[in-house]
Amino acid sequence: MQKSRTTSFGAVAIIGVGLLGASLGLALKNRRLASRVVGVGRRGSASLKTALKIGAIDTASTDMAAVSECDLIVLASNIGAFPDLMRQLARCMKPGAIVTDVGSTKEQVMQWAAELLPAGVFVGSHPMAGSERRGPEFARADLYQDAVCLVCAPRQGLNAKTLRRVESLWRAVGMRTLSVAARQHDEIVATISHVPHAVAAALVQLSCSVPGAEAAIAGGFVDTTRIASGDPTMWTDIFRTNGSAIDASLGVLIAMLEHYRRVVRRGAPEELQELFAEAKKRRDALVAKLRPKKGAKK
Amino acid sequence: MQKSRTTSFGAVAIIGVGLLGASLGLALKNRRLASRVVGVGRRGSASLKTALKIGAIDTASTDMAAVSECDLIVLASNIGAFPDLMRQLARCMKPGAIVTDVGSTKEQVMQWAAELLPAGVFVGSHPMAGSERRGPEFARADLYQDAVCLVCAPRQGLNAKTLRRVESLWRAVGMRTLSVAARQHDEIVATISHVPHAVAAALVQLSCSVPGAEAAIAGGFVDTTRIASGDPTMWTDIFRTNGSAIDASLGVLIAMLEHYRRVVRRGAPEELQELFAEAKKRRDALVAKLRPKKGAKK
Repeated sequence: MQKSRTTSFGAVAIIGVGLLGASLGLALKNRRLASRVVGVGRRGSASLKTALKIGAIDTASTDMAAVSECDLIVLASNIGAFPDLMRQLARCMKPGAIVTDVGSTKEQVMQWAAELLPAGVFVGSHPMAGSERRGPEFARADLYQDAVCLVCAPRQGLNAKTLRRVESLWRAVGMRTLSVAARQHDEIVATISHVPHAVAAALVQLSCSVPGAEAAIAGGFVDTTRIASGDPTMWTDIFRTNGSAIDASLGVLIAMLEHYRRVVRRGAPEELQELFAEAKKRRDALVAKLRPKKGAKK
Repeated sequence: MQKSRTTSFGAVAIIGVGLLGASLGLALKNRRLASRVVGVGRRGSASLKTALKIGAIDTASTDMAAVSECDLIVLASNIGAFPDLMRQLARCMKPGAIVTDVGSTKEQVMQWAAELLPAGVFVGSHPMAGSERRGPEFARADLYQDAVCLVCAPRQGLNAKTLRRVESLWRAVGMRTLSVAARQHDEIVATISHVPHAVAAALVQLSCSVPGAEAAIAGGFVDTTRIASGDPTMWTDIFRTNGSAIDASLGVLIAMLEHYRRVVRRGAPEELQELFAEAKKRRDALVAKLRPKKGAKK
């Protein structure tokens, strides 16, 4: 029954059909990469209906037993639900099936998988795609196109076939994969995503503390704080499961801001100029590297 | 010779034809709000030629004497050049002419104007428009459309006609004007613009300190740090002339981030959820207020 690796992942179950899950469903179906896409969600949730309606999934179920015939299972719910879902998967998934996820933290997730899932079935994934919007109504078949997926193999009991299969899934929907250790993953995303989120939330709070600021906000502030409009429950899960890396990274950022403050107090133009010139040079270089990749397939 | 207030500002001099100056020129000329627009710039600068070429100015000059026949003079260079420019203006501007600016800080600028310009000729302006891009090649006739302009009248020697004239200039190019005291202006922009700039620069620096982070950056990080690509010289001038408000505001932000850090260390999900939910609610409200205004004329 199993089809060629490069052309199909067989029956795919997507557990949680929000923005990420539904976009994966659309990408798989548009490219005919699955024989069938099964969406699994909570009873009474509107997401399953929307995902069906937009054609992101073929069938919808509120019962985990629906995954028992699936070859590939993708956890795309909030991370907080992962332990429960993994316990249920361990009971109902078929032999040979593999499991991955789209969660934003990896060390805790890999530990849960090691404890709760059969050996060798899980490889962690973090596709660096998405937006502050949530829900399948914002899903796009090209959400993953040209973005990076960080992939974490388990430290023990790794099954090479499982790893290749998961990497080929993300490549098949247009991503570049990057293999990293779970700890390194968590440190990377603490600095480029989680700490920026805390900062955006604090900047919103700061702006609300000054009379008149609200009336004056403009595009720059809107961009800087965009991520603060993300789903609070998702972000709470992320901060709960990446506390130590976020703590360390916030400490480094605070020390940097204390340094800026001292430079501002000294009123030293040369030092300010150097700080801003260095930051501009580095950001321009980061964005220049990003753009050609984004445009390559357009 | 003076034309109707609502239809023309007479001969207008724009000193410094970067993004803001050239966009003002385009807006004035497109709407036929000036009998003539004179661009003044540094000798050998490419900006003057570009501004002429795109039709943002009628004539170009590297000599401040060119403003001697102008009715309205707009300082649109970096703030650092203002004292020199004001000294020259005081010598060559004609009686009855008025002066304003587009600078990002106001207390220092108002003080310079009080010391260096004739009484009653200056009203400070800060149009909250622009981008991280610089130079007349990015100028747009609608740059100011639907944005806010903060207007600061001098505390002493205010000429009511000058104030009305400057307010009507910004309204004529599509802005809403908001009258604020210079000190309040500087506190507002410290929180919504200057501190976010320091934070964006620090986040870039932070991301470069973690191996592998560069390869994983995505859209969220690009948005959050966009302002870090702004012109270092402009930002150095801003930080030099708004040091005390930036210092205070950075202190408040650092205290907030220390609080986030304690909450992360406690691993308290309810507190995290409350922080993120509050930030989301406030940002969504800020942006919702912004959007209808932006769309109103479209």
